Amino acid sequence: MAISFEHSAQVVAATERTAALVREEVLPVERHYRGSAHDMPDEVRVRLHDAARAAGVFAPHVGARFGGMGLDMRDRAPVFEAAGYSLFGPVALNCSAPDEGNMHLLEAVATRTQQDRYLRPLAAGAIRSCFAMTEPAPGAGSDPTALRTTATRTAAGWVINGHKWFITGAHGARFAIVMARTSGEPGDRDGATMFLADTDAPGFTRVRDIDTLDSASLGGHSELLFDNVEVSDDAVLGEVDRGFAYAQVRLGPARMTHCMRWLGAARRAADIAAERAATRHAFGGKLGDLGMVQQLVADNEIDIEASRALIYRACWELDAGERGAQITSVAKTFVAEAVGRVVDRSLQVCGALGISEDAPLAALYREVRAFRIYDGPSETHRWAIARRVLRATGRTAAQESTP
Amino acid sequence: MAISFEHSAQVVAATERTAALVREEVLPVERHYRGSAHDMPDEVRVRLHDAARAAGVFAPHVGARFGGMGLDMRDRAPVFEAAGYSLFGPVALNCSAPDEGNMHLLEAVATRTQQDRYLRPLAAGAIRSCFAMTEPAPGAGSDPTALRTTATRTAAGWVINGHKWFITGAHGARFAIVMARTSGEPGDRDGATMFLADTDAPGFTRVRDIDTLDSASLGGHSELLFDNVEVSDDAVLGEVDRGFAYAQVRLGPARMTHCMRWLGAARRAADIAAERAATRHAFGGKLGDLGMVQQLVADNEIDIEASRALIYRACWELDAGERGAQITSVAKTFVAEAVGRVVDRSLQVCGALGISEDAPLAALYREVRAFRIYDGPSETHRWAIARRVLRATGRTAAQESTP
Amino acid sequence: MAISFEHSAQVVAATERTAALVREEVLPVERHYRGSAHDMPDEVRVRLHDAARAAGVFAPHVGARFGGMGLDMRDRAPVFEAAGYSLFGPVALNCSAPDEGNMHLLEAVATRTQQDRYLRPLAAGAIRSCFAMTEPAPGAGSDPTALRTTATRTAAGWVINGHKWFITGAHGARFAIVMARTSGEPGDRDGATMFLADTDAPGFTRVRDIDTLDSASLGGHSELLFDNVEVSDDAVLGEVDRGFAYAQVRLGPARMTHCMRWLGAARRAADIAAERAATRHAFGGKLGDLGMVQQLVADNEIDIEASRALIYRACWELDAGERGAQITSVAKTFVAEAVGRVVDRSLQVCGALGISEDAPLAALYREVRAFRIYDGPSETHRWAIARRVLRATGRTAAQESTP
Amino acid sequence: MAISFEHSAQVVAATERTAALVREEVLPVERHYRGSAHDMPDEVRVRLHDAARAAGVFAPHVGARFGGMGLDMRDRAPVFEAAGYSLFGPVALNCSAPDEGNMHLLEAVATRTQQDRYLRPLAAGAIRSCFAMTEPAPGAGSDPTALRTTATRTAAGWVINGHKWFITGAHGARFAIVMARTSGEPGDRDGATMFLADTDAPGFTRVRDIDTLDSASLGGHSELLFDNVEVSDDAVLGEVDRGFAYAQVRLGPARMTHCMRWLGAARRAADIAAERAATRHAFGGKLGDLGMVQQLVADNEIDIEASRALIYRACWELDAGERGAQITSVAKTFVAEAVGRVVDRSLQVCGALGISEDAPLAALYREVRAFRIYDGPSETHRWAIARRVLRATGRTAAQESTP
Repeated sequence: MAISFEHSAQVVAATERTAALVREEVLPVERHYRGSAHDMPDEVRVRLHDAARAAGVFAPHVGARFGGMGLDMRDRAPVFEAAGYSLFGPVALNCSAPDEGNMHLLEAVATRTQQDRYLRPLAAGAIRSCFAMTEPAPGAGSDPTALRTTATRTAAGWVINGHKWFITGAHGARFAIVMARTSGEPGDRDGATMFLADTDAPGFTRVRDIDTLDSASLGGHSELLFDNVEVSDDAVLGEVDRGFAYAQVRLGPARMTHCMRWLGAARRAADIAAERAATRHAFGGKLGDLGMVQQLVADNEIDIEASRALIYRACWELDAGERGAQITSVAKTFVAEAVGRVVDRSLQVCGALGISEDAPLAALYREVRAFRIYDGPSETHRWAIARRVLRATGRTAAQESTP
Repeated sequence: MAISFEHSAQVVAATERTAALVREEVLPVERHYRGSAHDMPDEVRVRLHDAARAAGVFAPHVGARFGGMGLDMRDRAPVFEAAGYSLFGPVALNCSAPDEGNMHLLEAVATRTQQDRYLRPLAAGAIRSCFAMTEPAPGAGSDPTALRTTATRTAAGWVINGHKWFITGAHGARFAIVMARTSGEPGDRDGATMFLADTDAPGFTRVRDIDTLDSASLGGHSELLFDNVEVSDDAVLGEVDRGFAYAQVRLGPARMTHCMRWLGAARRAADIAAERAATRHAFGGKLGDLGMVQQLVADNEIDIEASRALIYRACWELDAGERGAQITSVAKTFVAEAVGRVVDRSLQVCGALGISEDAPLAALYREVRAFRIYDGPSETHRWAIARRVLRATGRTAAQESTP
Repeated sequence: MAISFEHSAQVVAATERTAALVREEVLPVERHYRGSAHDMPDEVRVRLHDAARAAGVFAPHVGARFGGMGLDMRDRAPVFEAAGYSLFGPVALNCSAPDEGNMHLLEAVATRTQQDRYLRPLAAGAIRSCFAMTEPAPGAGSDPTALRTTATRTAAGWVINGHKWFITGAHGARFAIVMARTSGEPGDRDGATMFLADTDAPGFTRVRDIDTLDSASLGGHSELLFDNVEVSDDAVLGEVDRGFAYAQVRLGPARMTHCMRWLGAARRAADIAAERAATRHAFGGKLGDLGMVQQLVADNEIDIEASRALIYRACWELDAGERGAQITSVAKTFVAEAVGRVVDRSLQVCGALGISEDAPLAALYREVRAFRIYDGPSETHRWAIARRVLRATGRTAAQESTP
Repeated sequence: MAISFEHSAQVVAATERTAALVREEVLPVERHYRGSAHDMPDEVRVRLHDAARAAGVFAPHVGARFGGMGLDMRDRAPVFEAAGYSLFGPVALNCSAPDEGNMHLLEAVATRTQQDRYLRPLAAGAIRSCFAMTEPAPGAGSDPTALRTTATRTAAGWVINGHKWFITGAHGARFAIVMARTSGEPGDRDGATMFLADTDAPGFTRVRDIDTLDSASLGGHSELLFDNVEVSDDAVLGEVDRGFAYAQVRLGPARMTHCMRWLGAARRAADIAAERAATRHAFGGKLGDLGMVQQLVADNEIDIEASRALIYRACWELDAGERGAQITSVAKTFVAEAVGRVVDRSLQVCGALGISEDAPLAALYREVRAFRIYDGPSETHRWAIARRVLRATGRTAAQESTP
């Protein structure tokens, strides 16, 4: 029992197979579509799945019972990072957001029937899904308790009404996990329930696909309307009114898997910059002979190593069965900002080429920005981190001043 | 004779007219084309020119002789900033890069004949131009002395051969100012000459328009080939072999006008964020009641005020007839980074909406990134700034240690 | 009427005389006492005053009527910066805090009788003073309205009771300007009055001199007790209950003069670092040949130029009779942080020598830290800056949404 | 075999005993001497040693054979961090620099005879030592190969001549490990040898104790002269001419133990700030209710968690028998800067109190600054980090371009 950063031989092998898959099969596809999933036909996704299956790295996060590798959080980390080296790597492994987090949630909370209907085809890559939580102002945004979408009991089940946006993957999804208020008022810290709703249900409308800075997510980000969408009692995921708690179940690990994938993207940006610095001539020498370029390269390494160490630290805590709210907030905040810095520095090293969509840096620059916002903006996480520290400190101070 | 930050009544009025023009005429156009000049037909440019003429703010930087307002650098500053509030404001005023810098250069260096042929229609907005200096590796990039494009004397004049890229505005330009080596070898600190070349000259090929992170520049950024392009002796701008010196003539002011325009963009991003913070509710209050949001808002103000003060400082020096190499490097480096920070913070304040192309923040985020690279990457400027300081210091130290 | 950064010939000459005085007379004294005013006998102060008088730069901020040079804020800026090049330069010119701010306040608000008694000898350097506002928790700190010291009316005048600390210059001061509550409760935004109290008044006790990180302030920072200190009606400075307003009168300019002096300190630190970089050999070349050292040197220049431009900007506004609350907050926040960065970088360039008290960098490092805290912590200024922006924005937004 | 951050029960217990020791025995001593080891008599050190022995946590890093606990790097980490919570904690455990690193080196490289003579009493706390490497310019500084101190062979052994400074702990040390050039010229990357020299040897002079920003190191930092100091052949540590290699043996782990100790100091600063934020009232609430204060508190947590994770990562690699040059450079650079940030933020949270030597923050602020300089300045580490990345990248690029 001691600190260890050693992966099992199986995990090392899976990581290497993933890296090879990404290099040989995925990057060419990414290059062809210039990192935009909007332009990639669905059959390409299926083809990438097949390649991942052939490489034995399909669905690494899913239990064996559902056809996955059953890796725990720590073991996922290097595999997801290797997948994240390409914007489409997670698509290949069927571990991209939001499907991956949805699978995690369904495996943890859904009934056997729900799992057969939704998780099994999702894990197999036969269908896609989305997670419908975020709402336009004044609804649920960085403050999820502002939830305004409602689900009302009917004789036959529930009827959902509401307005959602920035729902990643909705275009093309077979079903959505919908967060709706079943009791209380916007602002209340409970009263939410999760529902499994088929996207072809009457009243379930995709209003539009929102044009955003990023474009690598399958299905993009959509605006949805729920106009008297009827669902049965079987559509309730877990228990009624426990939606915020399940959101936490989903979010802790989902934050970390986001971090893993984006760390792979950062690694790639850093590699591109390093290769340019090592080979491009300028000012009578190599670009990489210049101290300021060396500083950019070194700071990339520092950010990457610190990010990886924090991810592992958080995963260890999650695997140990802890909720890990503090460490996942810390890791998410650091990694999201570090990844942004790495991509920004790498683009700077590459100069005009970095601005061009010829190199993937411009695409990476567009993609990673949102990560400081979704899964909790950095400010919300900092607030939560500080609050936990200050509460604990306040308690200690109060105890110590008690005679 | 004392420090003053006061503008003349005429300049204040021109600034206000520009602001009104941008608000009423330009922003609607920008919104319609989502900030992309690629999709904007040329007649819209002409229409915007007419509106600017009607407002009496057309071509503020151009001498009255050529139909402009003849403002010096200090007086340009607030007008260009007001124009920069929209990505298309400088287009309306006919003061966007690279035309604006080219007009500046032509007014300073060109012969009367050259001015009549190129400057006059350019200043009138009848034609557009480009400045062909940057080359793909291993040519002229952040190190301009690596220039490889050559111009060789012929009986009739000169023949130009070379390869250029990231030439802003080339698509649609009537002529280019081409930097070519007329003596010496790549790496030599002189031997460059500027040529005025018509874009329809035989051998002058626009290979492709490069897809880049930004899209608000008229004509985008193109790759050009010069394959035995013949130009006459009249095509030489200024004197032979003095191209690097003229580049400096152009670059000092051009750096500052870039700063002015982008400062306007930063102001706009900050305004959008402030409005959102002042009006959006979250966590039981206004977004702007949250200390971390206040910090983002305050840091925007600080960056904007410091940027503006530095721009004025540099312009004063340029107007006083100084070369201003150090202060324009200082100002350009600071402003380019400050503008980037302001846009980044503003996007963060706006959360998911900031990522959406619904708001202009995503577009601003894409547009401003390159400013840390063109007109000299921050690293090159820092190197130049330090070198000047260290040389002066070294001289002083040497003198003091001399008995 | 246009932007100008030009100083009058008189100001340029005064600046040069100050620089020469500092170099020749003040720096040797500073070196001798290693920057600690605690160890410097008062006669040295008097001697430095004489040297400044001989150089014609004594009391630059004081009206001619009281023996000073009568410079406005803009003209003070370069002179104070030149004085601040040494930690003891402002002492020599009799323009160090808190005396300088007190003179400013007395000149603006005091009665003729009060001016004769307090301002005249203070301006002449015959006595020293202090400004007694800050209190230990839960009293007036970064939130001045928490003021708990009280002044109660008596038949003969007023009696003051309270506890103050971090009162700079109290040790050795002849009198104090004391902020006391004459109406309302702690937390109220008015009800404070300023009193002129002699430090040898019965009940006025200097409890102790607080040992602090810095040591260059004359008289250090002390803790004071006011135990039924009786003062006459003549001791009221300005009007009763207007103390918070006068504090603002004092603080705006005082913030800027602090900035000017500390900018001089930053300039000195940067010069030391540049000289070391220009002359020290390491890794087979000059230290200054290394890109990362160049970056430190360049960032120093950028911070210094931006600081100076912001100071001038704020001074121009103050001289124009504006209250300048926003711009002085912006400038103070930026300059306090920039000065800290410059000193930190300069120390880093000097390595072990920077840590040694042999070089003045360690002393500068200790001295400048507090500037991010006094005259309003950076956080308080940011809050105030954001609040002003958001209020203005909110008003505009409200107007625009009004039909 | 998987990632683990779990310590053994023994290590957890030792950490808790260390924390209790620090809280109950060490902090009162630190407070009494205000963190200055200069004023602490040697018998206090001995008394603290006895307390650590009684607590069973004396010499955690030393092999059992020499009376220590024999903890490997990973197990040292939490114990050293707990010790570092007080500036004198490492003194109590006999694991402060430079003794701790010297013990490490002697245990790894010294002969049995040398170990009996030097290591045994050092490990027992009976004597102190120093490590004499750094020289004034133009000698060995951040570039160790500039080494100018020489050791010349004589019939009887060696004679050492040279000038050293910033030699920590020299005042009061019984012996020094002296780095001297035995072959080659300054600038050569080998030719150095380590010697064990008694400080009372003829010609071994402590010129002066250098006054520095920090004051918590036993014996401070001294300037030494070696004037024909004669040592026997037995004084050679390890092999002749292998000094630079041994310096690396010492430096990798020494970097990490420095990080561990300073992380404890950062934790303490953060705790003080958190307690103040949780209890101090301002602006109508708790200080910790303010978002900007929360940001400072949260960023402290993020920096501390990232630092700790990186330290563990590096220790794991060192314990695995790797040289760990890259990861220890990464961790050292990050931790040194993170610790500085944490102390700076904590001081800011505490306002005027932070500046006062009443609270330990001012002392911590003075102490931690040098850590960005010794054991390799951040710039040197960044250069080394980048160089390794770029070499590896260059090799890969070269291979790939080979047909």
